[in-house]
Amino acid sequence: MATGPAPIDPLRWRDGALELLDQRRLPGAVQWLRCAEVEQVAEAIETLAVRGAPLIGLAAAYGLALADDVPAAARRLAATRPTAINLGWALERGERHHAGGGDLLELAHEMLRDQREADRRMGEHGAVLFGPGERVLTHCNAGALATGGRGTALGVITTAFAAGRVAHVWVDETRPLLQGARLTAWELERAGAPYAIVSDSSAGLLMMRGVVDRIVVGADRIAANGDVANKIGTYSLAVLADRHDVPFHVAAPRSTIDPATPCGGQIPIEERDAAEVTVYAGVRTAPAGAEARNWAFDVTPAALITSIITEDGVWPPSGLGGAAGG
Amino acid sequence: MATGPAPIDPLRWRDGALELLDQRRLPGAVQWLRCAEVEQVAEAIETLAVRGAPLIGLAAAYGLALADDVPAAARRLAATRPTAINLGWALERGERHHAGGGDLLELAHEMLRDQREADRRMGEHGAVLFGPGERVLTHCNAGALATGGRGTALGVITTAFAAGRVAHVWVDETRPLLQGARLTAWELERAGAPYAIVSDSSAGLLMMRGVVDRIVVGADRIAANGDVANKIGTYSLAVLADRHDVPFHVAAPRSTIDPATPCGGQIPIEERDAAEVTVYAGVRTAPAGAEARNWAFDVTPAALITSIITEDGVWPPSGLGGAAGG
Repeated sequence: MATGPAPIDPLRWRDGALELLDQRRLPGAVQWLRCAEVEQVAEAIETLAVRGAPLIGLAAAYGLALADDVPAAARRLAATRPTAINLGWALERGERHHAGGGDLLELAHEMLRDQREADRRMGEHGAVLFGPGERVLTHCNAGALATGGRGTALGVITTAFAAGRVAHVWVDETRPLLQGARLTAWELERAGAPYAIVSDSSAGLLMMRGVVDRIVVGADRIAANGDVANKIGTYSLAVLADRHDVPFHVAAPRSTIDPATPCGGQIPIEERDAAEVTVYAGVRTAPAGAEARNWAFDVTPAALITSIITEDGVWPPSGLGGAAGG
Repeated sequence: MATGPAPIDPLRWRDGALELLDQRRLPGAVQWLRCAEVEQVAEAIETLAVRGAPLIGLAAAYGLALADDVPAAARRLAATRPTAINLGWALERGERHHAGGGDLLELAHEMLRDQREADRRMGEHGAVLFGPGERVLTHCNAGALATGGRGTALGVITTAFAAGRVAHVWVDETRPLLQGARLTAWELERAGAPYAIVSDSSAGLLMMRGVVDRIVVGADRIAANGDVANKIGTYSLAVLADRHDVPFHVAAPRSTIDPATPCGGQIPIEERDAAEVTVYAGVRTAPAGAEARNWAFDVTPAALITSIITEDGVWPPSGLGGAAGG
């Protein structure tokens, strides 16, 4: 099986500091944000300079390596964003490692290597689900920019593309922050894969016309019962896929599965600044003073998910017991 | 029953020309576009300076009144946008009237008066469907700015609000051109109704949380079997509403019903410039050269529609025979 596109490295350790590819500036500018202190890493996570559930876990792991007071750093980093469980998972692992006398930088490097290997395996497990020449839809960005490897959902898609199994990718633009239009399109350009950006509202029309063969999305947290929190709009896609008999897959590393959360209703859903909805690139898109709400995630019930693709294989959402390894 | 907010007049006849409130500039600027020639009206329709199915019908009726060669003007205006049937309906009516020796300006004035009266009656027929203090969701703009009266869907909502039956309005921002965030929010501000703009992807979360009691949308064309073409994303809302047992209404004047189109699959769906998706207010939202597709409408099957509200009453979508009067 081909190995897919050249890697994109959204974070790197250089000269004693964590450098993050500033994802707020992509695709217009490739600019690195140097974080020499924990607070800078925390702010980069809060402002989405770094985003994607696996990648914010890795950024937090490197953040701990910058800390003088590791427990305080872990508390600060844990408070940045509530939904992605990879963050809490990485911080707990770091604190345990540190308490046992381990080196936090070595751990972060190891976690990045593990994520890359997990992505590679997810890609291969997922790609074999595809028939030849499929038209696939994805939402938000679950690519290299979200993991540091080849990506979860987008890693599956580019691996399948490299194997000749993807004819076209429908890229939901993913309002409000347009991670699909800005980041997924950028990755697919680099991969040479044929794609088209569409408004998030287009998925129903596309499925009604029969031009979506499969949907693959990432996850920010998977509850023990298989319910999945992911970028707002994922649930709508799953409901439409159910109506149109389109297979709906979630690709995520085992670290995204949270055995301590029994079901999706208990996953905290982050609400972000309304200005992300009412202002784009400094231009107001609504009347001055307009009210807006901005929930960043929704929950897709396990019953709407065809399968969950992890580094250890492809699982029915109701049978995650064996997959949960966080 | 209260009469709702002060009227908004999105078009006016002044000193021998049609003046259009330029809806591309709202809410940032209130600016009038003066059209003294048919071609200017056609371009205003094509570029969405004037939009909304009933209003483009009225703009076309006034456009004919500017013409030297009425059949040629009708052909030019008919070619502007394919989906809204009100356009073809208004042009046919104008051509018949002109062939019979009638005055086209008088006809346009009469059609505007009729639309205002139809909106008032739709508002009253629709408002009685609401219980007290409901939370209503709408998509795109089907308000005064779309009709010249008080609006179709938004007219129903503001009439119900004036009667104490609406506690909150969820306003889909409606990508790509943000008619919800720009226009519906502006109208609701003027009406003093409590609302919040949300990304189009938020509807699923809101329905899962049980905070949507009813959905009301407009229509660009209603087929004889009750299938409804409306702004892209309407179909997704209807599928979600069906899953969550949320009543889903379409409000439209009888002129939107097209007895000559048997079912929704035969309604032409306009595809617009991809740049509407990839550029906002001059700012690129996607990589240079990125592919995008931009279908402006989708079709909601009659089976997903609770009822269709017209000026003559509230109809089951399967029983439109008596309502069609176009």
